[in-house]
Amino acid sequence: MLIHSSTQLLTLKGGPQRGRALGTLGIIENGAVVMRDEKIVAVGPTDELRASYKDEPTLDASGCVVMPGFVDPHTHLIWAGDRAGEFEMKMAGRPYLDILAAGGGIISTVRQTRTASIESLIAQTRPRLLRMFAHGTTTAEAKTGYGLQTATELRLLKALLALADESPVDLAITFLGAHAIAPEYKNNPQGYTDLICETMLPTVQQWWQTHAPRLPLPFVDVFCENKAFTLEQSRQVLTKAASLGFPLKIHADEFDNLGGAALAAELGAASADHLVKTSDADIAALAKSDTVAVSLPCTPFGLAEKEYTPARKLIEADALFALATDCNPGTAWNESMQFVIALACRTMGLTPAQAIAATTINSAHAVRRSDTIGSLEEGKQADLLILNVPDYRHLGYRFGTNLVRQVVKRGRIYSVDVGYYRTA
Amino acid sequence: MLIHSSTQLLTLKGGPQRGRALGTLGIIENGAVVMRDEKIVAVGPTDELRASYKDEPTLDASGCVVMPGFVDPHTHLIWAGDRAGEFEMKMAGRPYLDILAAGGGIISTVRQTRTASIESLIAQTRPRLLRMFAHGTTTAEAKTGYGLQTATELRLLKALLALADESPVDLAITFLGAHAIAPEYKNNPQGYTDLICETMLPTVQQWWQTHAPRLPLPFVDVFCENKAFTLEQSRQVLTKAASLGFPLKIHADEFDNLGGAALAAELGAASADHLVKTSDADIAALAKSDTVAVSLPCTPFGLAEKEYTPARKLIEADALFALATDCNPGTAWNESMQFVIALACRTMGLTPAQAIAATTINSAHAVRRSDTIGSLEEGKQADLLILNVPDYRHLGYRFGTNLVRQVVKRGRIYSVDVGYYRTA
Repeated sequence: MLIHSSTQLLTLKGGPQRGRALGTLGIIENGAVVMRDEKIVAVGPTDELRASYKDEPTLDASGCVVMPGFVDPHTHLIWAGDRAGEFEMKMAGRPYLDILAAGGGIISTVRQTRTASIESLIAQTRPRLLRMFAHGTTTAEAKTGYGLQTATELRLLKALLALADESPVDLAITFLGAHAIAPEYKNNPQGYTDLICETMLPTVQQWWQTHAPRLPLPFVDVFCENKAFTLEQSRQVLTKAASLGFPLKIHADEFDNLGGAALAAELGAASADHLVKTSDADIAALAKSDTVAVSLPCTPFGLAEKEYTPARKLIEADALFALATDCNPGTAWNESMQFVIALACRTMGLTPAQAIAATTINSAHAVRRSDTIGSLEEGKQADLLILNVPDYRHLGYRFGTNLVRQVVKRGRIYSVDVGYYRTA
Repeated sequence: MLIHSSTQLLTLKGGPQRGRALGTLGIIENGAVVMRDEKIVAVGPTDELRASYKDEPTLDASGCVVMPGFVDPHTHLIWAGDRAGEFEMKMAGRPYLDILAAGGGIISTVRQTRTASIESLIAQTRPRLLRMFAHGTTTAEAKTGYGLQTATELRLLKALLALADESPVDLAITFLGAHAIAPEYKNNPQGYTDLICETMLPTVQQWWQTHAPRLPLPFVDVFCENKAFTLEQSRQVLTKAASLGFPLKIHADEFDNLGGAALAAELGAASADHLVKTSDADIAALAKSDTVAVSLPCTPFGLAEKEYTPARKLIEADALFALATDCNPGTAWNESMQFVIALACRTMGLTPAQAIAATTINSAHAVRRSDTIGSLEEGKQADLLILNVPDYRHLGYRFGTNLVRQVVKRGRIYSVDVGYYRTA
């Protein structure tokens, strides 16, 4: 199959884009991609490719932008229930302590998730995953973390493996037992930290080798923040995880600067995520590392807060910068990377081109898959989008809707219906 | 047809909601709507309606919220081209004067619109209108205003009538010849104002009576703002329009407080729109009137500005408050009223219930149609939404995607596919 765009084919070729190189789209006008099975076999000017692939069937994307599928590198994809009532209380100006007293906050999702069967967890998560796909996400990171006890965390891992199996979206799975202090350990956070290190991580490692022997180990992530895990506890969790062979991620600096970003850089984590209160020293540490700085603008937006990741500082310091949805039931229930782009441009001063690189090749690197996805290059997975727009700048410029016409995943073409059809 | 919701049927009954009454949803749990032809014939508890309408076929909306279709009371629906390049320049920090020098700003859309054929205008506008419909807008206001010369403005009116005819969305059409000073009158704004009053308005009146004799006259609107029309020029346009029988609207206080809102109240305009820099005196004038205060939060969002309509003040003063997309190519290309709700909650402190009333019954009043649409009541048009959510608070809580499952317009059911289907 040859896909032809008469306007802009964005290749994003050349690997992750650091600092000021961010936003190098590698545009081919009148370009094409040739796919065979699940892979890209050629990318270039349409004229040249038609000459080389004479009998190849063509998918005409004239007037449409063609680009790599989005890689969403930070989602809390799987949970039960919702917290819509909590949102209403927040908007009505009720203080956070009232919301907690009314049973709100992360622990309310933990409660609902613990009592949900695996069938129910899969059924509740499936529409979110399909919604992500319809909005152009072809690979998503997906964290556990609403179990906070071994059995439920394993159920979440099992459900995520099942969803990855049934869905066209590839999942990069993360174990986030260290999402919050489990309610049973409310007055003993160190006890919960020790439980994670001594019981959960070895159990997950063994469980994974039994249940997903052909897959590499999932990421291990920790919420390094006041009222969650201290810097020392975060180091304890991540060091133990690394010793068991897990690749690492961290939640850092959402509300306070505890030093989690520098810890991520020191330990060679794939990414440090949130980064709102990040200090200049931590920015410098990230900039010298291969740890991707992942900004989650939907979270301050969702919470109606004013402060966002200092993206321009990170970029100017030469850090690797990426964007994610942070899709979760408490602060940011949004599945669309297109909305993340629109928000990032307006709240952090990114150009559309920078935001596109931050949601494709760089976010692929944040899940350590930039060798196989995130750009349109020979040999890579055929994961790409056909957008109903004549110019890539419509990403960012337009907001609130879905600009995808078709999603191609591993060479298979899926049409997205942004319209409607009459049934009666 | 009987439509049954096992969760929440929002009726919004009882007419426009002023001040603190805003957000009265009139919820029926386990409720139903019965439709015959284009109208609602009964609304109430499902048990009762099933007893009265024994053989009525049922559309099962179990687990879904059922509510009135959105009424979007302020859109610049029809234009040619786009200004995506201008957006990129803004995000890259280029000053506004540079953008103008590069051919940007409203006049660039005027240039593209003037040279577009009516067929091209319709073809470019159709996807926007269908996108609105797919996101639940069943009635939209639609302004001319990118012509700024009689012939083009009439072409825009003609195109809007054609679109209203072919589309399921009802349009409330507005003549906005006074959108900006026409480039030919750059140094003579009073000359352009006089042209509108002496030539355009009488021409539009006659044209309308010939081309749409069965429809009431369109609204006449004016952009009362520094660098557009002064308060006196706005008064001149609106007074002339009123004398010809046109109902009135105004753009006021987007960037400066010139007194346009009080003028709207004084002249009995249907609405005063934007209202960011509105003074307390103007708020008081609106509160005493039947003029609806229409806030357009996508515009400051689109421009990455910090200041929004003082919605809480307007509501507490007892004004009629509504919300709209302001869909336009310069500052806010968004077709979704769901996104407007999400934004209004976060930037203006509305609750989801208030925002829902502001996008249905109150926005219907802003186009003076609250007698026929905007609520689910016996005798009204059967315009309603079936949402893929178990609780109305998901509107606001969730953002960036489309929560509509089906749109019912004048009793006809349209399915919205937010997912995808595989084609190859």
